[in-house]
Amino acid sequence: MEMEQMGPQTFLYGCELKSGKEVVFNPEDDDLEHQLSIRMVCVDPSTKDEMHIIEAEGRDTEGQEVQAVIASLKPSTLPSVCLGGFEITPPVVFRLKSGSGPVYISGQHLVMGADQSFDDDED
Amino acid sequence: MEMEQMGPQTFLYGCELKSGKEVVFNPEDDDLEHQLSIRMVCVDPSTKDEMHIIEAEGRDTEGQEVQAVIASLKPSTLPSVCLGGFEITPPVVFRLKSGSGPVYISGQHLVMGADQSFDDDED
Amino acid sequence: MEMEQMGPQTFLYGCELKSGKEVVFNPEDDDLEHQLSIRMVCVDPSTKDEMHIIEAEGRDTEGQEVQAVIASLKPSTLPSVCLGGFEITPPVVFRLKSGSGPVYISGQHLVMGADQSFDDDED
Amino acid sequence: MEMEQMGPQTFLYGCELKSGKEVVFNPEDDDLEHQLSIRMVCVDPSTKDEMHIIEAEGRDTEGQEVQAVIASLKPSTLPSVCLGGFEITPPVVFRLKSGSGPVYISGQHLVMGADQSFDDDED
Amino acid sequence: MEMEQMGPQTFLYGCELKSGKEVVFNPEDDDLEHQLSIRMVCVDPSTKDEMHIIEAEGRDTEGQEVQAVIASLKPSTLPSVCLGGFEITPPVVFRLKSGSGPVYISGQHLVMGADQSFDDDED
Repeated sequence: MEMEQMGPQTFLYGCELKSGKEVVFNPEDDDLEHQLSIRMVCVDPSTKDEMHIIEAEGRDTEGQEVQAVIASLKPSTLPSVCLGGFEITPPVVFRLKSGSGPVYISGQHLVMGADQSFDDDED
Repeated sequence: MEMEQMGPQTFLYGCELKSGKEVVFNPEDDDLEHQLSIRMVCVDPSTKDEMHIIEAEGRDTEGQEVQAVIASLKPSTLPSVCLGGFEITPPVVFRLKSGSGPVYISGQHLVMGADQSFDDDED
Repeated sequence: MEMEQMGPQTFLYGCELKSGKEVVFNPEDDDLEHQLSIRMVCVDPSTKDEMHIIEAEGRDTEGQEVQAVIASLKPSTLPSVCLGGFEITPPVVFRLKSGSGPVYISGQHLVMGADQSFDDDED
Repeated sequence: MEMEQMGPQTFLYGCELKSGKEVVFNPEDDDLEHQLSIRMVCVDPSTKDEMHIIEAEGRDTEGQEVQAVIASLKPSTLPSVCLGGFEITPPVVFRLKSGSGPVYISGQHLVMGADQSFDDDED
Repeated sequence: MEMEQMGPQTFLYGCELKSGKEVVFNPEDDDLEHQLSIRMVCVDPSTKDEMHIIEAEGRDTEGQEVQAVIASLKPSTLPSVCLGGFEITPPVVFRLKSGSGPVYISGQHLVMGADQSFDDDED
């Protein structure tokens, strides 16, 4: 009953992307369910004034790798953008498809106990 | 009980629109329920600096095709926009109503087991 | 049980506003519950570069007509804005309070069976 | 059961702020629960091109008045901003902390029957 | 049953950041569950026209301090940004990583009774 109120536990997530430096979000196998809810993508004062394309790599329904552009930022035009809770199931890889960065990603790392999982056989 | 917590399963979705190239989202009939939750529409560094109008085609309550403009982007003014989880039931077609692109669409592909469907006769 | 997962059925909604041309959203009385969840308001490449004020007219708790400005767009400053799921109970009227348009509105038309209604006497 | 689907009843809310003119949202005591979910803050074509700071005054957990800046708008830079459903429990007062306006606030007035309240002693 | 409708109680939250002045959100231990849902980050008319980087410090799943950039604002480019309900579990510290401010943060302080908590042992 309690879980219906507040949902999963929420932890802060933040990372920094630079050209040629991928960031992987893949919590270790710990019998818990993990989800990443991306909130903001932001530039730094040191970020070069060029178009930055932020790409996420996850999985589609077939389990195949899929790339998706989740934000395009240019410091002098749009220094930060809200993604409004873009939920991605790990493993996720973030990288700059264009631009040299740095670019910051932040959001919520959601964790749920295994007994609250939504496995097919438990329903 | 578990399903009430986390909702449907979430997969990453991404596509690229160019002038004259429609993108169709229509998962095959597999006894599962599919929904597309569009999060972001973004330009590329190579996108020409003109107004790009992104259109989605879906169905209204009568089953008729309906077109809706879901974003207007110009690289030098607004390089990316959040749609905050614009849910569209497939089949969906995306196209550029104006502009030559490329423009990226990303979001969440939501999948739910048939036993969790909301068919009228099951309630 | 199934309804708790996915909520009401979702259909695509789109309309176009021009100066002097109101758009009414008022699904016929069909024993279903209708809601409009507005997602995006967007300009067109042909939209004049002036401030456009988009107004919605709905009802307040007394059943009286109430007007609300739901977006201000200027093509060269902000060509599209997300409303993040602004839910309005029909009847709703959209109009341009300022500007000649065209301006596009899009969102989700939510429909729920009468047996799922939230009438006072059913609870 | 029905209430779990659609949540509280939704009415349209809109107001206009000018310098020196506060707007109060405080529905009369009617045995119902009221909440304001602010969606958009927008300028008018007549709004002077200066920074406008929109402030809300509500209550903290101690019942003390608390002020919060909920939007900063300048017509030539950002004519409207989405707040994505900023929920405030009445009584609420809106005012311009800076700028002469007019500025429009819109959102959803949510109403819930007393038998659906979340009083401590009812759970 | 009532709680399922309206969720936790909502109080207004607002603070002001200046260079060298951290703001801590850490409600005292009172047997209640607290969450901060950040909605808006906004500049002031007096804010210098430089890039402001707003950082939040919270905890990761290991209980370790983690920093995340939650917004980048420049008065002449983007005077306010919506975070769409970025939920952070206290203790949280906000600070300006760059820029001298002032910058305003606002949102909802969510409070839930201990009997509605989601402790592992209660489910």
